[in-house]
Amino acid sequence: MKTVYTDKHKLRDAKIEIHEGGLVAPFECPRRAEIILERIMETGLGEVVAPDDFGLDPVLAVHDAGFVEFLRTCADEWAAAGFGGEAIANCWPTRTMNSPHIPRFIEGKIGYYALACETTISVGTYEAAVASKDVALTATALVMNGERAAFGLCRPPGHHAASDQFGGYCFLNNAAIAAQYARDTGAQRVALIDLDFHHGNGTQQIFYDRDDVLFLSIHGDPMDAFPHFLGHADETGTGAGQGFNVNYPLPPDTPYAVWKECLDQALARIADYAPDLLIVSLGLDTYEHDPISFFKLQSEDYTDCGRTLAGLGLPTVFVLEGGYAVEEVGVNTVNVLQGFDEAAS
Amino acid sequence: MKTVYTDKHKLRDAKIEIHEGGLVAPFECPRRAEIILERIMETGLGEVVAPDDFGLDPVLAVHDAGFVEFLRTCADEWAAAGFGGEAIANCWPTRTMNSPHIPRFIEGKIGYYALACETTISVGTYEAAVASKDVALTATALVMNGERAAFGLCRPPGHHAASDQFGGYCFLNNAAIAAQYARDTGAQRVALIDLDFHHGNGTQQIFYDRDDVLFLSIHGDPMDAFPHFLGHADETGTGAGQGFNVNYPLPPDTPYAVWKECLDQALARIADYAPDLLIVSLGLDTYEHDPISFFKLQSEDYTDCGRTLAGLGLPTVFVLEGGYAVEEVGVNTVNVLQGFDEAAS
Repeated sequence: MKTVYTDKHKLRDAKIEIHEGGLVAPFECPRRAEIILERIMETGLGEVVAPDDFGLDPVLAVHDAGFVEFLRTCADEWAAAGFGGEAIANCWPTRTMNSPHIPRFIEGKIGYYALACETTISVGTYEAAVASKDVALTATALVMNGERAAFGLCRPPGHHAASDQFGGYCFLNNAAIAAQYARDTGAQRVALIDLDFHHGNGTQQIFYDRDDVLFLSIHGDPMDAFPHFLGHADETGTGAGQGFNVNYPLPPDTPYAVWKECLDQALARIADYAPDLLIVSLGLDTYEHDPISFFKLQSEDYTDCGRTLAGLGLPTVFVLEGGYAVEEVGVNTVNVLQGFDEAAS
Repeated sequence: MKTVYTDKHKLRDAKIEIHEGGLVAPFECPRRAEIILERIMETGLGEVVAPDDFGLDPVLAVHDAGFVEFLRTCADEWAAAGFGGEAIANCWPTRTMNSPHIPRFIEGKIGYYALACETTISVGTYEAAVASKDVALTATALVMNGERAAFGLCRPPGHHAASDQFGGYCFLNNAAIAAQYARDTGAQRVALIDLDFHHGNGTQQIFYDRDDVLFLSIHGDPMDAFPHFLGHADETGTGAGQGFNVNYPLPPDTPYAVWKECLDQALARIADYAPDLLIVSLGLDTYEHDPISFFKLQSEDYTDCGRTLAGLGLPTVFVLEGGYAVEEVGVNTVNVLQGFDEAAS
C-alpha cells in the first residue's frame, strides 16, 4: 500500500515532558516517524507520496474554531507573556470549577484547552499538526478514490485530541478528521477502530452522539492507564450514538491471545455494521517493550493483526498514533501493513 | 492578639513547582512562616501558643473522606509505583471526560483529586496539612471561647482546597474547616472574607449552596489570574446559598484605593449579615512586590486594612493564606494584625 508522509512532522520537536514527577525528553519524538519511513523503504512496502493541502475546513468539521485558533497562537502568546520554554498547562477547569468563561491570559487559556499537561506546545507544533491532518486526509482520499488501503504516517498523533482539547501528544484528531472527511465525500458509514495502547478519548468524544461513525477501542484499562478518565466498558454512546461506541479495557500484562479475542469481537461488530470505510488508529505501544505501556504484544503479532484486519475486506485507512519503543516501532508498524497487504492481495 | 503556631509546617517542604513552562523552587516555602513568626516576636504582637489536636472529624465535616485518605497515602503510593521525586498530576478529568470512576493507579488518582499541577505532594505534606488545620481550629476555639481575635499562622495554606481537590499550594481548607467548626460549636452565622490575591475557589465551592456561611473574596480577575476557572462576579451562590457568595474580581495593577472600596462594600455586606464570627483568609500576595501576583498594595496599606476590619466589631479569626514576597511577608502580615489590635482596643 501507499504511504503518505511529509517531513513537516519534524516541526513538532518538543524538548520536555512531565513524567513521573520530573521533566524528561518526550517519548513522542521525530525519530519515531523517521524509523518507520526507513523501514517502509527497506521493505518496499509501496510508494511514498506527499500529502495534499486540504485547508482547515475538514478540521473545523470536527474541532472547535476557538480551539484551533488557540493552537495556532499559543506558542506566540506564551512567549509574549515573558514565559520561557514550552507552553505547559498548570491548572484547568476541574470538577469543582464550572465557570463558562474562557480565560484571557495564556496561563489560564492553555488550561482551558488542555486535557493533560505532560504535552507542551512548542514553536512549530501547530504547523506540524496541520501537516499531520493533511497526511491522514490524503491517505483517506486515496482510499475513497479506489485504493484498497493506504497508510497515513501521521505525526504528531491525534486520537487523544477532543473537539476542543489537546493532550497526550495530540493536537488535531487526524483519525476523526479523516472519518468526517470520508462521510462528507460519500461514505455513509465509517468504522474507526483504535488499536493504540491508550484509549482514544478524543475520537470517542467527537463521535459519541452519532451513529454514522462506529468507534471501537482496545486499550489499557483507564483505572490503570492514561488517559485515566475515559475508556470504560460502560461508555457506549449517547442519543443517536447509543450502542455505537465500544470499549475493550484490558488489564496489565495482557498478551496477544487475549488482545486478539477483543480484536475478533470488534471486527465482528464492524462487519455487522457494514461500513463503507474502515479507519485504523494504529498505535504500536501495545508492544511488550513499550516504555510507557503495559501490554505484551510481540513483533510477529503485528503481522497477524494486519492479516486479521484485511479479513474484513473493507477499504482501509491506517493512521499512525503512538508507539514509543522507538527502535522497534518501524518493524512493528510495517508488520501490520505487510500482514494486511499479504492477506488483501 | 494570640498567634497559634507549630513548626510542623516545615514538614511541607516541596522542592519543585511547575511555573511558566519549567520547574522552579516553590514560592510557597517554610521560610514564609518563619519570617512571620520572627516579626510577631519582634513586635510583641502577643502570646504564641501551640495548636491542640482536633482529630479528623472537623476535616471530614467539609472534605470528602476518599480525598483525605488520598492525601494521606499519595506520597507512599507514588514511591511504591517506582516514580521518583514528588507526586505531580499530569492528566485530569476534563470537560470532555465525564467518567464517574476514580482511577486505581496513583498517576490517575492524583489527577482526579488535583485542581492544578504546579503543586506537588511531597513526603510530609499530609502531616503538615493536618497540623495546619489544627492551627486554624485552635485559633477559632480561642475566639469562640471569648478572645476578641486570634491569628492562625497556617502553613500550608488552604483556600484553594475544594471538598475533594488540592492545588494552588493548598491541601486541606483551613478557613472552611474553621468556619464549619464554629458553626458546630455555637455560631449561627459565619462570615468568611478572603483577602488573598487569588480567588478562594475551594472555600467558595464548599459553601456555595449554604446561607449559614457568607463567603466574600477580593482577588485578581480569573480571566487573568490563577485559579482562572472560578471567582467571577456572576458566581453568587446556588439554592439556599443564592446571594451568599460575593466575588470582587479586580484587574492588573489595582492599587489600594480601589481594593479598599471593595473591602468597604464587603464589610457593609458582612455587617448586614450580622454573623457571630468573622474569619479572614489573610493572603499578603496583594503586595506590590509579590512575585506571582499583580495588585499594588503597599506595606502601610495592610495596617489600614487591619484597622478597617476591626471596625466591624466582630470576633475575628485570621487564617494565613498566601504571600510570596518572603522578606516582606512578616511586616505585611503583622501590620494587618497590629492595625486590627490598635483599632479594637
